[in-house]
Amino acid sequence: MNPANWRTYLVTQASLSGDRTTPEIVRAAIDGGVDAVQLREKDASARSRYELGRELRELTAEAGVDLLVNDRIDIAQAIDADGVHVGQSDLPVEVARELLGPDAIVGCSTSTVDEARDAEAAGADYLGVGAVYDTSSKDVNDDQAGVGPERIAEIAAAVSIPIVGIGGITADNAGPVAEAGAASVAVISEITAAADPQAVTESLAVAVETPTAVDAGGDDR
Amino acid sequence: MNPANWRTYLVTQASLSGDRTTPEIVRAAIDGGVDAVQLREKDASARSRYELGRELRELTAEAGVDLLVNDRIDIAQAIDADGVHVGQSDLPVEVARELLGPDAIVGCSTSTVDEARDAEAAGADYLGVGAVYDTSSKDVNDDQAGVGPERIAEIAAAVSIPIVGIGGITADNAGPVAEAGAASVAVISEITAAADPQAVTESLAVAVETPTAVDAGGDDR
Repeated sequence: MNPANWRTYLVTQASLSGDRTTPEIVRAAIDGGVDAVQLREKDASARSRYELGRELRELTAEAGVDLLVNDRIDIAQAIDADGVHVGQSDLPVEVARELLGPDAIVGCSTSTVDEARDAEAAGADYLGVGAVYDTSSKDVNDDQAGVGPERIAEIAAAVSIPIVGIGGITADNAGPVAEAGAASVAVISEITAAADPQAVTESLAVAVETPTAVDAGGDDR
Repeated sequence: MNPANWRTYLVTQASLSGDRTTPEIVRAAIDGGVDAVQLREKDASARSRYELGRELRELTAEAGVDLLVNDRIDIAQAIDADGVHVGQSDLPVEVARELLGPDAIVGCSTSTVDEARDAEAAGADYLGVGAVYDTSSKDVNDDQAGVGPERIAEIAAAVSIPIVGIGGITADNAGPVAEAGAASVAVISEITAAADPQAVTESLAVAVETPTAVDAGGDDR
């Protein structure tokens, strides 16, 4: 799927899923209509991520959901993922593009206009921008103070590729992120730690599609 | 180079190099005749390893020294390394082979006969076997109690691919490792922390080529 058409994006983190497995969380998010899943699990070994990735590939492929791998281009290749998501300390976007080819989805974490312009110029298909709101996940960006929806708007004005807002986003505060110009929202704990991950995924999609809480019509941006 | 023809193998670790840079240590090892260099630096970001790897690729290519990347097949591809070295928790040997093709060198860490047979069957070109001697490097294998040259002999009897002994090896104790059947020896601190890395590399090669300290003739195994 074109990242411009994503609405909700789940970043996995087994440590937040309680007594559910990551495939169970992903299954529930798929049932809730999630558009993209990123295999993250930074603390797991490559072997574990590969094995988990193969499971997630089956689930997501069946459902037509995009699967991205955080950082590791080789794991993405090995599990036939749709693409990778790289941060500022990972392999450069150009290298990911070179190794994965023109059809793969390459996303890049950015938190400033300069980083965003650089990533677009290097061939990124989408930008992960954040942390939008203050977050305790400690894993979205080095700087965990939220940049706010204003930064989304600044970056959206500077680039033409779609933006995925990330960091501290919930169904309650996703509206302003979409209004500021994000095509979709990515979450870790909001879905992973939820009592009902499917329902939360559905609520997030509604919040993105109908940016202001009082605007039931939505503008389908 | 065919791994069977290696004698000395340096595994990099910046934290042990004192006030020298890793390229300086590698340069000295090359001057001492090192045959293979493995870019390890497990704690560094992918971006740092990629940048360091490009420097090491220049140095090693000029000198005709093999360059391997630990764990990350994508970094190996990105810097045009000669191959990768994977451990039991990394991507499987089969996956490395599939991604890198038939000409790449794929090595695998093993400490038992079963692991060694599996790695050979999966297409490994060489085995890293250890830790041979007790080591404090905490990074050779999960089990840091030395398996001894006896294990090298057991594994050498069970497989036909070359063995690189690793773990606690010095010029003084490398002889029995080679006598037991290792084609070469890999070291981290012995070269990296040495006052004269070039001289140590030379001594290690001599120890491998002339297994018994009293046997000045050597058997050129």
